[in-house]
Amino acid sequence: MQLGMIGLGRMGANIVRRLMRAGHECVVWDVDAAVVAQLAKEGAVGAADLEDFVSKLTGPRNIWVMVPAGYVQSTIDKLVPLLDAGDAIIDGGNSYYRDDIDRAAQLATSGIHYLDCGTSGGVWGLERGYCLMIGGETEIVQRLDPIWATVAPGKGDVEETPGRAPGGTAEQGYLHCGPNGAGHFVKMVHNGVEYGMMAAIAEGLSIIKNADVGKHQQEIDAETTPLRDPQYYQYDINVGDVAEVWRRGSVVGSWLVDLTAAALARDPELAEFGGRVSDSGEGRWTVLAAVEEGVPANVIQASLNARFASRDLNDFQDKVQSAMRSEFGGHNEKPAS
Amino acid sequence: MQLGMIGLGRMGANIVRRLMRAGHECVVWDVDAAVVAQLAKEGAVGAADLEDFVSKLTGPRNIWVMVPAGYVQSTIDKLVPLLDAGDAIIDGGNSYYRDDIDRAAQLATSGIHYLDCGTSGGVWGLERGYCLMIGGETEIVQRLDPIWATVAPGKGDVEETPGRAPGGTAEQGYLHCGPNGAGHFVKMVHNGVEYGMMAAIAEGLSIIKNADVGKHQQEIDAETTPLRDPQYYQYDINVGDVAEVWRRGSVVGSWLVDLTAAALARDPELAEFGGRVSDSGEGRWTVLAAVEEGVPANVIQASLNARFASRDLNDFQDKVQSAMRSEFGGHNEKPAS
Amino acid sequence: MQLGMIGLGRMGANIVRRLMRAGHECVVWDVDAAVVAQLAKEGAVGAADLEDFVSKLTGPRNIWVMVPAGYVQSTIDKLVPLLDAGDAIIDGGNSYYRDDIDRAAQLATSGIHYLDCGTSGGVWGLERGYCLMIGGETEIVQRLDPIWATVAPGKGDVEETPGRAPGGTAEQGYLHCGPNGAGHFVKMVHNGVEYGMMAAIAEGLSIIKNADVGKHQQEIDAETTPLRDPQYYQYDINVGDVAEVWRRGSVVGSWLVDLTAAALARDPELAEFGGRVSDSGEGRWTVLAAVEEGVPANVIQASLNARFASRDLNDFQDKVQSAMRSEFGGHNEKPAS
Amino acid sequence: MQLGMIGLGRMGANIVRRLMRAGHECVVWDVDAAVVAQLAKEGAVGAADLEDFVSKLTGPRNIWVMVPAGYVQSTIDKLVPLLDAGDAIIDGGNSYYRDDIDRAAQLATSGIHYLDCGTSGGVWGLERGYCLMIGGETEIVQRLDPIWATVAPGKGDVEETPGRAPGGTAEQGYLHCGPNGAGHFVKMVHNGVEYGMMAAIAEGLSIIKNADVGKHQQEIDAETTPLRDPQYYQYDINVGDVAEVWRRGSVVGSWLVDLTAAALARDPELAEFGGRVSDSGEGRWTVLAAVEEGVPANVIQASLNARFASRDLNDFQDKVQSAMRSEFGGHNEKPAS
Repeated sequence: MQLGMIGLGRMGANIVRRLMRAGHECVVWDVDAAVVAQLAKEGAVGAADLEDFVSKLTGPRNIWVMVPAGYVQSTIDKLVPLLDAGDAIIDGGNSYYRDDIDRAAQLATSGIHYLDCGTSGGVWGLERGYCLMIGGETEIVQRLDPIWATVAPGKGDVEETPGRAPGGTAEQGYLHCGPNGAGHFVKMVHNGVEYGMMAAIAEGLSIIKNADVGKHQQEIDAETTPLRDPQYYQYDINVGDVAEVWRRGSVVGSWLVDLTAAALARDPELAEFGGRVSDSGEGRWTVLAAVEEGVPANVIQASLNARFASRDLNDFQDKVQSAMRSEFGGHNEKPAS
Repeated sequence: MQLGMIGLGRMGANIVRRLMRAGHECVVWDVDAAVVAQLAKEGAVGAADLEDFVSKLTGPRNIWVMVPAGYVQSTIDKLVPLLDAGDAIIDGGNSYYRDDIDRAAQLATSGIHYLDCGTSGGVWGLERGYCLMIGGETEIVQRLDPIWATVAPGKGDVEETPGRAPGGTAEQGYLHCGPNGAGHFVKMVHNGVEYGMMAAIAEGLSIIKNADVGKHQQEIDAETTPLRDPQYYQYDINVGDVAEVWRRGSVVGSWLVDLTAAALARDPELAEFGGRVSDSGEGRWTVLAAVEEGVPANVIQASLNARFASRDLNDFQDKVQSAMRSEFGGHNEKPAS
Repeated sequence: MQLGMIGLGRMGANIVRRLMRAGHECVVWDVDAAVVAQLAKEGAVGAADLEDFVSKLTGPRNIWVMVPAGYVQSTIDKLVPLLDAGDAIIDGGNSYYRDDIDRAAQLATSGIHYLDCGTSGGVWGLERGYCLMIGGETEIVQRLDPIWATVAPGKGDVEETPGRAPGGTAEQGYLHCGPNGAGHFVKMVHNGVEYGMMAAIAEGLSIIKNADVGKHQQEIDAETTPLRDPQYYQYDINVGDVAEVWRRGSVVGSWLVDLTAAALARDPELAEFGGRVSDSGEGRWTVLAAVEEGVPANVIQASLNARFASRDLNDFQDKVQSAMRSEFGGHNEKPAS
Repeated sequence: MQLGMIGLGRMGANIVRRLMRAGHECVVWDVDAAVVAQLAKEGAVGAADLEDFVSKLTGPRNIWVMVPAGYVQSTIDKLVPLLDAGDAIIDGGNSYYRDDIDRAAQLATSGIHYLDCGTSGGVWGLERGYCLMIGGETEIVQRLDPIWATVAPGKGDVEETPGRAPGGTAEQGYLHCGPNGAGHFVKMVHNGVEYGMMAAIAEGLSIIKNADVGKHQQEIDAETTPLRDPQYYQYDINVGDVAEVWRRGSVVGSWLVDLTAAALARDPELAEFGGRVSDSGEGRWTVLAAVEEGVPANVIQASLNARFASRDLNDFQDKVQSAMRSEFGGHNEKPAS
């Protein structure tokens, strides 16, 4: 079927490619004319501007918007005056689910449908397919079923879940989660879980990497207690090999461990990274939701905080603590080694 | 090759079966004669007692001990007087890696070799194979290579890690991690990571399950602030479907999500469980190692603490806090709803 | 000077009493006529209804509203039509600071001033005075200075901070923190800090109380690793005595430790408490602010989560973890002991 | 009475001074002859070496050892051969309580008594007195009662705990906590509580300091979601004034808040500190004890981890996370701003 795509960044472009491979017709537009031209060369219908884009779609139109969260509202604001009742907008980015609820209500007054679609899969989605978490009106979700079915991974070679009743789309890798916002809500929490899993793996590998701490001379002064049993911390363990062996048969086997193994295979020291871990909205929103729901999400919160600390946002609070230590004990900070 | 197995519980018995399927000869013993008889019926050489067990093995013997951590030392104490120099004991259970170091040193005085082998795979290992993390002398680890190669999963249909130099055993699902204790050290941390990943998934699903919190009437009193935006918490999301859809194409795809989907397929309410999550040693030891190494393992620690709290070990500290609130504000506890 | 007080609960009534002791004139009203009558007997001017209340105040009026957060808006809605330009409303409760900002802007259109005043001190404030954190227009804050100065503790016998320039109101126990909302913002964070300090003390006392864990028989099975060094956990330490000794000369000396000592003096087992620790808004809001600001507030978040867990809000996530353990390892939950 | 003091650092010297002011006789020794000379000038009996020190004490001797934890064992090893049965050694430093248990048992074979005395009070103890947490044999603890009573703060102007039975030494600021090790155990946990309280205060002040985050321009890209409600983060709040106002009448009033106010009075930006917060043994040991006891001490653990992170010990785990993000999403790290 026909789909319009606005936003041809990393993910938008690959979703278009995946759709075209399956025979769908894609009309595409982006603020960057060069990427429109590139996709047109690959078979898409390129549009010169937003008016052109809309005019090339036959009604009722289905338009997937795949732009950074900060640009979704302005894009929709420009798009809506050009649309007709019955048209549908899919926000495939990482919008806050509350905006979905508000937007859908507002667009409904013009008869325009709005779907939110959380999209997971990163740069690998072109080949693997994207896991889709969808919110909105049932009828419109169903209208787009051929699109979801193509963009999603399908059953693939993942084994069926024992005991699960056959059927439904979840086993194909896409799910209508509920009314407006439900898709982005589930995607938001997915990313929160992702933060937690990533931190768990990273902490574990750090504990393994530091298993040689007993080899390092400990200074003895009033500030530092020496390691009691250095003989138990004498290991030089290859962290990359550990990630690799965990990929097969272990309980922690996961795509994130696969990726970690790949990164460590390229460089066991990960020297190209400074250790400043970004967070991009969903992690924060997941914590806000947990707090408002009263769910004790210690692990997800801790993983978000670790990202803050990785970017030195703990600076002032640490100074306050050093200042207290200086006040009550005359303790001086030790210089960075 | 020939292997002796002491301990025919869940994992010991299945390791024997997996070895026998590949043509290895297994001599088996357990305190429970019935399970010995069962394995013997399946092709193993059953032993009547420990002396019989040892006598049926040809030297240099290779003896895998697969008993609960609390019985390892007493088992080895009984076994050692029956052995000869050059024999090797493999502790395949969840011993503390420090005991491995001490035991290996002690056994070395009798010329007996000791290997520690962390074994992951649970009840599924018979079919999937077990991920093996091994510590000990290189020569003895290599002597047992046919055993490891059979017990481990092998490459299977897991894709090769891009950029990783071919070869080595890690991609076969087993790894010689280092000298004595290194295997159990890596397995210990593996379990710590497992705790963290499990908690991340569980927290996320709880946030999704509680996305209907806005539907519940909030009481208004001095103790409780009502939910500010109940309209944003009106979702009834099928948690089992969410786990299922995350199995394909998502970043959190993992064996733990697979298992969660299976559990929720059987019962979406998980009513058979009371929510008392056990911890069995490795999680605690991982935290101890993190603390001694100075690694900030917030996520793994939080997941361990959550298990403690699930078993009401937070009882006294919560009473202390309620008592303080009563003292400074005259706040009474609210009854359980 | 004259002050009107709406809301004669625990704190409102005592603030009135403290003001009257210092010679201020208080006009009082509450939905409960009995408490109005009681305060009138003690010297306040009682009002029959809101109209009567307003009419008994001479303009420009200064009206302190001290009602549960859930009733602030409705109280103000009823009050405002009765007021004149130049009158001032002080919200002394635990409102969300964002509401202050919005309310102040709205009331400004009628020429009515709005101050937010975070009030700490609990049931002890009558004697100790209340720590006041105030937000709003400078001119109006200054107009009310005689009220703040009376309600606040004053310098008392607390030593001067060495190195601090003399003067300012902070050393008197009240502070104009900034424009509208700033008072409640600082009070909100104050309560977040309070949560963290309470949890730290409670955790510590629990570690001391459980210092006898080595005396309890440990069962040995595949699920539980026995305590390695029970000889180091043989202490029966009187927790109440510990709280008492920490009150003098120790680094943790604090009002919260004082209160804890009092509670433990009454009952060392705190048997009257069930351990269900309430949270009342500010703790949650503090975490939301930390997340939005990008401040890694691990301790405050953990203390909030511990309160959630104390009320069994961790139930579903714990079941999910038990279910996973059952799936991968065939582990059964152990019954509550 | 007579007391010998070994170790005349910050705390040892001031304890001697406090004892001499009350008329006790102090024999002193230190590896640094200059500090011995200084104390001798102030009235102490200085010793030229350890033999001289012991010879100047009349039996049964009472010797307080106040040296860094790393030197306690070697000091005692040198001291013991010079002592007689009936003499008592007090370890007043921050030794691990397990060492106390082991040491006491070993010294008992020579008839030498051993007491462990956790000492809190920092550089302020000379004037305020030191909070003492004591472990060991009852008879010897009582023999030293005149010493404890002098070194401790006494009742001072701290109010009596309501409801507490009069008597006992806790209200004088010293406590016999239990048998050997119990004193250092309680002091260890005290420091763990201190870590948690310090972090709670520091986090709160950081949230207040960052209340202006809405004023800073947010960049919009795929990596960063802009702050949703910048209008609610426009405050410039004087953090030093906040600490000062919290000193009077607030629930968080505490010595640590007093000290924080002093530090901020000197420099509101705390520019002399780099934010590298040391940890010195007790915090780690507290966490180890919590884990072994099964006490969920989230707050204390988080505060310890925050100190690790303040010293960049999170470096590798953060790199692992950035590497994963790069793998699955092609995300690049953002440079430090």
